[in-house]
Amino acid sequence: MSTPEYDNDNIFAKILRGEIPCFKVYEDDHVLAFMDIVPRGMGHALVIPKEPCRNMLDASPEAVAHVHKIAQKIALAAIKAFNADGITIQQFSEDASGQKVYHYHVHVVPRHEGKKFGPANVMGDMDAIKANGEKLVEALE
Amino acid sequence: MSTPEYDNDNIFAKILRGEIPCFKVYEDDHVLAFMDIVPRGMGHALVIPKEPCRNMLDASPEAVAHVHKIAQKIALAAIKAFNADGITIQQFSEDASGQKVYHYHVHVVPRHEGKKFGPANVMGDMDAIKANGEKLVEALE
Repeated sequence: MSTPEYDNDNIFAKILRGEIPCFKVYEDDHVLAFMDIVPRGMGHALVIPKEPCRNMLDASPEAVAHVHKIAQKIALAAIKAFNADGITIQQFSEDASGQKVYHYHVHVVPRHEGKKFGPANVMGDMDAIKANGEKLVEALE
Repeated sequence: MSTPEYDNDNIFAKILRGEIPCFKVYEDDHVLAFMDIVPRGMGHALVIPKEPCRNMLDASPEAVAHVHKIAQKIALAAIKAFNADGITIQQFSEDASGQKVYHYHVHVVPRHEGKKFGPANVMGDMDAIKANGEKLVEALE
């Protein structure tokens, strides 16, 4: 497998540079977490490292470790915020895995008993996503 | 959500104690990695912490970080060992997420272009799984 270069114009790079907006839920020196606007479940969030890397295959081990520590923080907050029954963590590396945006990102999807994953290609309601982001921020405090 | 106690008799606790066998691919002071015997893709491996925890919701942040650092190591080895085109990382916490074994575990699933996930409930061929485990060990060296 040959690995292409990191593309500085991918959508998450633009979010990191503040060139396009996001519903931010957490930020520190190394990671940013924000709401997925194509949510597979209520309160679906993404955690990304600030370092430029395409996916888990070229990320630094430190980025992988820190992104998942924060994913855990968000997962615990999401259980509270959305009264969730469980959490699914997903991370896709490369096209064969279904990766769409080529900046390393980890999905934190709150789950509710009896509720299947939502579709992978349907934009969510922005007001609802914003409100869920606010709930998550509150639960993180 | 109320969280039940960790069950010392879950199958991965037994694997950690050496009471039942596994196709081990990696071990250090904090984690064990071994082949999933219900593989969703060729070379599907699991990484688990040695500390007793049910899933990501009660794992220590250090366990979460270390398990994923090792998952990355295994992912990179799997790309080589199986000429994989990508990797899917999955981690399920609680029944609503589809968790079956209640010891925290991270799935590292090698992916090949055009090949969908295999079924979640079909035991693999043990000789093939053993051979894939050996390939993974070799690629990790």
